[in-house]
Amino acid sequence: MAFLRNTWYMIGWANELDIGFVHRTIVNENILAYRLSDGSIAAIEDRCPHRFVPLHKGRQIGDVIECGYHGLCFGADGSCVKNPVEGAIIPKAARVRTFPAVSRYGVLWVWLGDPAAADPSSIVNLDFLVDPKRSTVQGYMPTRANYELAIDNLSDLTHVQYVHSEFQASEVFHKLKSEVFQEGNTITTRLTLPNGKPAAVYSNAVGGLDAPIDLVNEVEWHAPSVAILRVRGYRPGDRSESLFDVKSAHIISAESQGTCHYFFGNTRDFALGDHKVDEQIKQWQRTAFIEQDKPMLEAQQAFLGDRDLFDLHPVLLHTDAGSVRIRRALRKLIEDERDAAVPK
Amino acid sequence: MAFLRNTWYMIGWANELDIGFVHRTIVNENILAYRLSDGSIAAIEDRCPHRFVPLHKGRQIGDVIECGYHGLCFGADGSCVKNPVEGAIIPKAARVRTFPAVSRYGVLWVWLGDPAAADPSSIVNLDFLVDPKRSTVQGYMPTRANYELAIDNLSDLTHVQYVHSEFQASEVFHKLKSEVFQEGNTITTRLTLPNGKPAAVYSNAVGGLDAPIDLVNEVEWHAPSVAILRVRGYRPGDRSESLFDVKSAHIISAESQGTCHYFFGNTRDFALGDHKVDEQIKQWQRTAFIEQDKPMLEAQQAFLGDRDLFDLHPVLLHTDAGSVRIRRALRKLIEDERDAAVPK
Amino acid sequence: MAFLRNTWYMIGWANELDIGFVHRTIVNENILAYRLSDGSIAAIEDRCPHRFVPLHKGRQIGDVIECGYHGLCFGADGSCVKNPVEGAIIPKAARVRTFPAVSRYGVLWVWLGDPAAADPSSIVNLDFLVDPKRSTVQGYMPTRANYELAIDNLSDLTHVQYVHSEFQASEVFHKLKSEVFQEGNTITTRLTLPNGKPAAVYSNAVGGLDAPIDLVNEVEWHAPSVAILRVRGYRPGDRSESLFDVKSAHIISAESQGTCHYFFGNTRDFALGDHKVDEQIKQWQRTAFIEQDKPMLEAQQAFLGDRDLFDLHPVLLHTDAGSVRIRRALRKLIEDERDAAVPK
Ligand code: FES
Ligand code: FES
Ligand code: FES
Repeated sequence: MAFLRNTWYMIGWANELDIGFVHRTIVNENILAYRLSDGSIAAIEDRCPHRFVPLHKGRQIGDVIECGYHGLCFGADGSCVKNPVEGAIIPKAARVRTFPAVSRYGVLWVWLGDPAAADPSSIVNLDFLVDPKRSTVQGYMPTRANYELAIDNLSDLTHVQYVHSEFQASEVFHKLKSEVFQEGNTITTRLTLPNGKPAAVYSNAVGGLDAPIDLVNEVEWHAPSVAILRVRGYRPGDRSESLFDVKSAHIISAESQGTCHYFFGNTRDFALGDHKVDEQIKQWQRTAFIEQDKPMLEAQQAFLGDRDLFDLHPVLLHTDAGSVRIRRALRKLIEDERDAAVPK
Repeated sequence: MAFLRNTWYMIGWANELDIGFVHRTIVNENILAYRLSDGSIAAIEDRCPHRFVPLHKGRQIGDVIECGYHGLCFGADGSCVKNPVEGAIIPKAARVRTFPAVSRYGVLWVWLGDPAAADPSSIVNLDFLVDPKRSTVQGYMPTRANYELAIDNLSDLTHVQYVHSEFQASEVFHKLKSEVFQEGNTITTRLTLPNGKPAAVYSNAVGGLDAPIDLVNEVEWHAPSVAILRVRGYRPGDRSESLFDVKSAHIISAESQGTCHYFFGNTRDFALGDHKVDEQIKQWQRTAFIEQDKPMLEAQQAFLGDRDLFDLHPVLLHTDAGSVRIRRALRKLIEDERDAAVPK
Repeated sequence: MAFLRNTWYMIGWANELDIGFVHRTIVNENILAYRLSDGSIAAIEDRCPHRFVPLHKGRQIGDVIECGYHGLCFGADGSCVKNPVEGAIIPKAARVRTFPAVSRYGVLWVWLGDPAAADPSSIVNLDFLVDPKRSTVQGYMPTRANYELAIDNLSDLTHVQYVHSEFQASEVFHKLKSEVFQEGNTITTRLTLPNGKPAAVYSNAVGGLDAPIDLVNEVEWHAPSVAILRVRGYRPGDRSESLFDVKSAHIISAESQGTCHYFFGNTRDFALGDHKVDEQIKQWQRTAFIEQDKPMLEAQQAFLGDRDLFDLHPVLLHTDAGSVRIRRALRKLIEDERDAAVPK
């Protein structure tokens, strides 16, 4: 199956670079990201052209990467800048591919397509992740599932009632309203649970466990696989002011056909900088994502194997409207990209 | 390789249902078995038609299974009986396959073939497993080997002398007599070890370690892969009354080409209900089956891979007469079934 | 990819036989080696022709191997010498393949090709491994990498500067001289590091950490995959007498296309029989081979998969001269063998 290439993929959190290299396979490309001395980000092929060992087994010296096997050194432009043996010739072929890369919103992004087309301004706006008025808890979950299954999961939030029931099962679930909105290639799925009791986690914000609220969950999808999830509570029927507003980014990068990198960043506008609350949210992320979502996604993938979910004719429910719309939009973008690549 | 389908396969022990769902893959079908409120057994496809997650990740509510992903509910007849969202349409395609299922002799049986042909009276008689005058110790061993290798193992009990030598090596092994009897599709292999010393485990029953016995081992095979093993001791040359009579069921269900479910039930007519003896037998089962037979079967399978044992031209000994007869009978049954399915 | 067959492969260390059978897969052949009562070595196919279980699951009785499943016995000539059942016929087909085998230099060698051509005098001379004036520390490392990658590793010792830097990084590395010599099918790669400081391990032998030496590393390759590594230190410019002389054998046997057996024997001419020094060397072997070389080789293999390294057009450096020469010589030997096998 084809992947979108002229787009920015998250390869890691920017602060992972404080510990060492960030190296992951993105859409079947082995990529090594590192920080240059001027603070900018370089991303090169994670494979030495000499004997094909991963360059992340070497080390960074100034702005170059030294291969850990025989010491060839590569610059951020991909060229081999040093053979450690005096006078030894450096073959012209000794170079690695490079990828446009940038750090934005605390996220490291790499561009897999035509470098000339790489425009950081096309990166999805995730400024809430670094909003000084919010606190963010980051997470990462490598998942043995196709990235579209993770997007499906997000674009049909009715699963929360079942998969994450201890956090947010609603007694008015049967009355839910499901809507889909599209603006260009941004597709938003909205789930409204009217006049129900709040989950425990929101009870303080709304005035107790018995204070009824309209719960509005929105998932805003951006191609190929970034989703912004917003959970808001309102007094029933009154949308003038939200009682709480929880926002999170779910950034998924395909690793291969059957595996993906799932990054999440949960933000809040209260208890800023409170490490105890951070720790509670981390624990919640572990439970909800790693113990609950991940096994579900991986069970689907294990069954699908190399097959595409829609080729197996799944039963479609009206709550699938968002995921169907998204899969179609994504298919169209991939086809358009392929068509544009054909010489006229 | 084809499998017999118009037959009953064991999917589990009935008392496994006391703990939760029984869900296993039988002949490449994912099946979920559960108990209905009237005490009967239901077996449905373990795969939600909506997003293809296993239904065993959901829960049972009354007589229906609720999918653990988005809450569709399925009845024992396979139809979707509920979409949790008020007024939401249930697509006709929202249904799962069902399998005739029944509990008999403490065993859960499922029928993979034409439901109209499913007749519980064709289940092999294993009433000794639930005979109040006997005590039974059950076991289960998932095995990475083709199910026919397990049947081979049983139908040539000379292996006991080598694989389980510490339990039953006989000093008169070289004098053994091997016979095969066939009645319809029931094939019995009998091994007689005449006038030898009893194994320690039988010494009490025969009057000491030095009291010579004729040891008679019989394996009665029923297609496709149920075997009843009977071990009896007699005073030499006198078949009028057995000194001991140990009977066990070995019920093997193919999971896939290279894996099977191996269930065993060992019964005895002494020390009834004695948990200490139960525990000794459990320990013996672990040693004999899991530590001794299983590695042997899995080593064969690792070598065979997708190849059929007989395509590799194994050397045949006269003690293979039973296993050869069984493989042929099984092949014929599978071919007959295939031929019957061809429209005339 | 083809392998050389008319050659001796190491299947294990001779002293492994003190513990039990030596059984390994060499070039896709399952082989079982054992010692006969006259002290000579037998090697037979590790697969019973009856039901295809590995014979190493059985036991040795005198000079025959008894299968652990049903007790057929095989002699060192491969014939079945016993069916344990009295009077039972032994089919003619009941035999296993045999391989010429010999113990030399503490090494068990097996010959995979035409038995008539098996001449132990063609085994590489490794008498330093059993030289009473040296002490040897043996090791073994099963590796998930093609055997040629291990040979590449040895024939380009510049990797020591990076992979094993804490043992032997040299401040004059950039001044190294790399030479290749060929005599028939023996190819020697020599690396000279002139006038540099000795590694800590050699400092005693040369008169302190600041006494400059010429360090000369030589790797002598013998087809298909035996290498003798010699590390010597000299006073700068003076080759009349070495200050130290460390010699090791690296004996690699292909197991399959993507896996190999890597045996090593490090010898020294000092601290003979000193078990504390032995233990230090063992620890060093674990670090250098298992923690450092092995992950590098396996990372290459993971990337290569079924592809041949040279088909991927690696960049070639002048320090690759040895490995290129070796790969070519090996290719030629394999092709010659194949051509010789074609009837004229
Ligand atoms: S593999 Fe990178 S320098 Fe040799
Ligand atoms: S997958 Fe079962 S209800 Fe959606
Ligand atoms: S498998 Fe070796 S004797 Fe039967």
